[in-house]
Amino acid sequence: MARRRGSARSAPQSPAVQRVNYKQLSHPYAPQKALSEEGVQKVHDTALRTLEELGVRILHEEARKIFERAGARVDHDSQFVYIGRDMVEAALKTAPRSFLYKGARPEFDADLSTGRMVFSPGAGCPNVTDRTRGRRPGSLETYIETTKLHQSFDVIHVLAPSAEPQDIPTHLRHYETMRVQLTLSEKPIWVYSRGKPQTIESFEMIALGRGLSDQEFEDNIWCKTVINTNSPRQIDVPMAQGIIDFAKAKQLLVITPFCLAGAMAPISIAGALMLQHAETLTGITLAQLVRPGAPVMYGGFSSNVDMKSGAPAFGTPEHIKLSIGTGQMARHLNFPFRSAAGSAGVTEDMQSAGENHMGLWAQLQANTTLTLHAAGWLEGGLTFGYEKFINDVEALQVIAELNHPVEEDANSIGFDAVAEVEPGGHFFATTQTMDRYRNAFYDPLVADLDNFGTWQENGSIPSEDRATKIWQQVLADYQPPANSGDIAERIDPYIANHKAAGGAEIVMG
Amino acid sequence: MARRRGSARSAPQSPAVQRVNYKQLSHPYAPQKALSEEGVQKVHDTALRTLEELGVRILHEEARKIFERAGARVDHDSQFVYIGRDMVEAALKTAPRSFLYKGARPEFDADLSTGRMVFSPGAGCPNVTDRTRGRRPGSLETYIETTKLHQSFDVIHVLAPSAEPQDIPTHLRHYETMRVQLTLSEKPIWVYSRGKPQTIESFEMIALGRGLSDQEFEDNIWCKTVINTNSPRQIDVPMAQGIIDFAKAKQLLVITPFCLAGAMAPISIAGALMLQHAETLTGITLAQLVRPGAPVMYGGFSSNVDMKSGAPAFGTPEHIKLSIGTGQMARHLNFPFRSAAGSAGVTEDMQSAGENHMGLWAQLQANTTLTLHAAGWLEGGLTFGYEKFINDVEALQVIAELNHPVEEDANSIGFDAVAEVEPGGHFFATTQTMDRYRNAFYDPLVADLDNFGTWQENGSIPSEDRATKIWQQVLADYQPPANSGDIAERIDPYIANHKAAGGAEIVMG
Repeated sequence: MARRRGSARSAPQSPAVQRVNYKQLSHPYAPQKALSEEGVQKVHDTALRTLEELGVRILHEEARKIFERAGARVDHDSQFVYIGRDMVEAALKTAPRSFLYKGARPEFDADLSTGRMVFSPGAGCPNVTDRTRGRRPGSLETYIETTKLHQSFDVIHVLAPSAEPQDIPTHLRHYETMRVQLTLSEKPIWVYSRGKPQTIESFEMIALGRGLSDQEFEDNIWCKTVINTNSPRQIDVPMAQGIIDFAKAKQLLVITPFCLAGAMAPISIAGALMLQHAETLTGITLAQLVRPGAPVMYGGFSSNVDMKSGAPAFGTPEHIKLSIGTGQMARHLNFPFRSAAGSAGVTEDMQSAGENHMGLWAQLQANTTLTLHAAGWLEGGLTFGYEKFINDVEALQVIAELNHPVEEDANSIGFDAVAEVEPGGHFFATTQTMDRYRNAFYDPLVADLDNFGTWQENGSIPSEDRATKIWQQVLADYQPPANSGDIAERIDPYIANHKAAGGAEIVMG
Repeated sequence: MARRRGSARSAPQSPAVQRVNYKQLSHPYAPQKALSEEGVQKVHDTALRTLEELGVRILHEEARKIFERAGARVDHDSQFVYIGRDMVEAALKTAPRSFLYKGARPEFDADLSTGRMVFSPGAGCPNVTDRTRGRRPGSLETYIETTKLHQSFDVIHVLAPSAEPQDIPTHLRHYETMRVQLTLSEKPIWVYSRGKPQTIESFEMIALGRGLSDQEFEDNIWCKTVINTNSPRQIDVPMAQGIIDFAKAKQLLVITPFCLAGAMAPISIAGALMLQHAETLTGITLAQLVRPGAPVMYGGFSSNVDMKSGAPAFGTPEHIKLSIGTGQMARHLNFPFRSAAGSAGVTEDMQSAGENHMGLWAQLQANTTLTLHAAGWLEGGLTFGYEKFINDVEALQVIAELNHPVEEDANSIGFDAVAEVEPGGHFFATTQTMDRYRNAFYDPLVADLDNFGTWQENGSIPSEDRATKIWQQVLADYQPPANSGDIAERIDPYIANHKAAGGAEIVMG
């Protein structure tokens, strides 16, 4: 779905000659700088020194042994691994720099190459909220709803667990999240790395659902997992296991230190970037040691904490600078990269709208390849908001429209149009306007352009409440993909058998 | 006032070692492009052709004669003036390219040079609104309040008539607006060009209030006026008179076509930019014919209309592209320039927050020198919102903080800080954090970083309502400038005499 849908406005739909394919976007503007070129080099060098001299604690024995076999100094008692710069540089030689993250059909593929602009919805929240049902823990019902919302907006490019179905026991949860993704959406799929059994079963369900042979599965990227290091300088068991399992299967790893300046990272911008860089390089190196050429993406998710409360802040000046700096560090190594927008505000209001706009524009300045938490994220990730999601999708659509270039032909430069109109007149009836009015401008999703009087007559409804009608209508209109039933027939016996066998416990390390 | 003040939060104030002087800001990022270099040249050439072949209707006889004397072809019956490119090019030779727009003291001067970032509040609204008193026409009381708000936030750099005092008759209104500006604020002053009598009296009051001789007045820029052309291709009597009066007095003209694509301008981005460029050049040329070297600023305020309702839209993709294109056209002539943010939404909600963020970031992409309507503008300029203002000031402060560079010294890059912390630990107690925590991060004005539970305990107050307490507290804390009484003593007799003589009728042409 593109642009307006289910709006409360009664005006007729434009004929919708869509100018921009919201499914495939590129960055409209050049990347900006937060660090000098010399600063980038110093951050990189200091990160290498950190890995070499201070080391990283890796709680997973097999991962330590992989580093050890490759020549790293390892202290198994303290679990410290000291990674030399030669090892990092070798990994950077084998790591690929472009990823085609596949959906069910090519139109849904997410091309994660430098310069591309891919949006992922708010993810990882324990709670959801909407203005009719209130704030509550995520459930299978809300997981299904949010997946339908993600499928319904073209500007949401990949799936993400906006809120997990917490009413499903953890040893069975991956069956449900995979079934929902495969049967209700055609967009690229996420997997949580919570131990080898769940990861391998997820791979198997994807291959079954997408109808892939083992070779076809390995030849392309069908899913991704986000590896959050335990900043500072630590990688736990499930994260290390995830790196190993995904690298072996050639599925996409997104290495993402969560470096909140002042809490899990130095309070300085350059320091948080340095630690993030060191940790990302650790993940990239491990993945390349497991399997040279494994698809692994540079990731950053750095903001600051509020020094009064210790709470994470988003949309701050520091978040903006850290995002731009992350882009510089990734480009220094020629990687596409992930970063994130999002809001710290707890409700759908001007604060949370403003925070996400700041965060999204930070990603535009950074030329972020994959922007996580682009829509719907509240409370620094503790709650996914349905109305927040709709209002944020408006922002994403406005940004998407920047992919439509300014036309510079003679008709567009408009001498003839201007010649048609008397001074002080209007252009509503010019030939140029009549030719172009249907799709000259972006048609908003939730923004109301009525005047005050009409708005008041319509009930004085702010955008937060207009958004309620929109998500309700989108869910009411939702249709599953045509082959949804076939996919269910393929994966349901697998799921039933594995449930009968007791499911797969998660491994938290 | 900088940053937090009167917040509802009970946390103690930071010692506030302010890192950025909010009063003097520069653009943190390089300007972006909407047009190709060739497109810029084509728009410029077509604008010159428009002026030469299609002409401009100028309703003011003296202005037409000024053009005629300079060699332009003029048809006084139809009021058309055809401006040759030689005349435009001569004007571009004498027009200055940098303006020091003076406040009462140097710290309040607004340096309008290329690369600087100057914010002006939402202006020109017939109405005001706040969440305690509702929406109502602007009055002297609200004009005083809004001027106090503008004086109180350092990130608001110049004064503007957020809403005019409509309870004051038009022939007396300029006395009140000038008295309020001179006695309640020290920031640079605005004047409305509504006929020579009011303009000249405004100049006289400024000279009296600021204590300036005639020569001192003429040697500097003490006030500005915005000249809105009557797009397309028309300049009315008061606007032409304003150009003449301000040019003669060497006070600042901001030539601003209001080119809404699809209504008063071609529906195409390049066409709206072309018409805007032609009209701005007309104003610049007239000013230079009146007095070579007269301070005149390139202006643009172009967005699109909603093609369903005809209402102006802001924060749209078209607004963003037009802003960036305006910047390119101004830089093509080496002018600093004005543009605008603002919101079409009618209330303080996520829509209007989002629109203004989009508009502000558009100005960052454009490197706009003077951003009008930066805070508080609702309904496309029909209402100034107090809570909207406070929430928008937060956005301006976040942007202002981007003036603080990322530090790249060894301590900031943080090897020692990282070495201090065990893997999986935290940085709250590191030497670096202890040294820096007081002013490491931006301290928000209205954003609440409490968690959901605390926010709920505090009454579940969204940022729109928190903003009410903030503007009320700012007004309660407001103190007039120390010399306010002296200034009043100088201008009050002038005002009393002129009122007694009947005031000064506005001339609307």
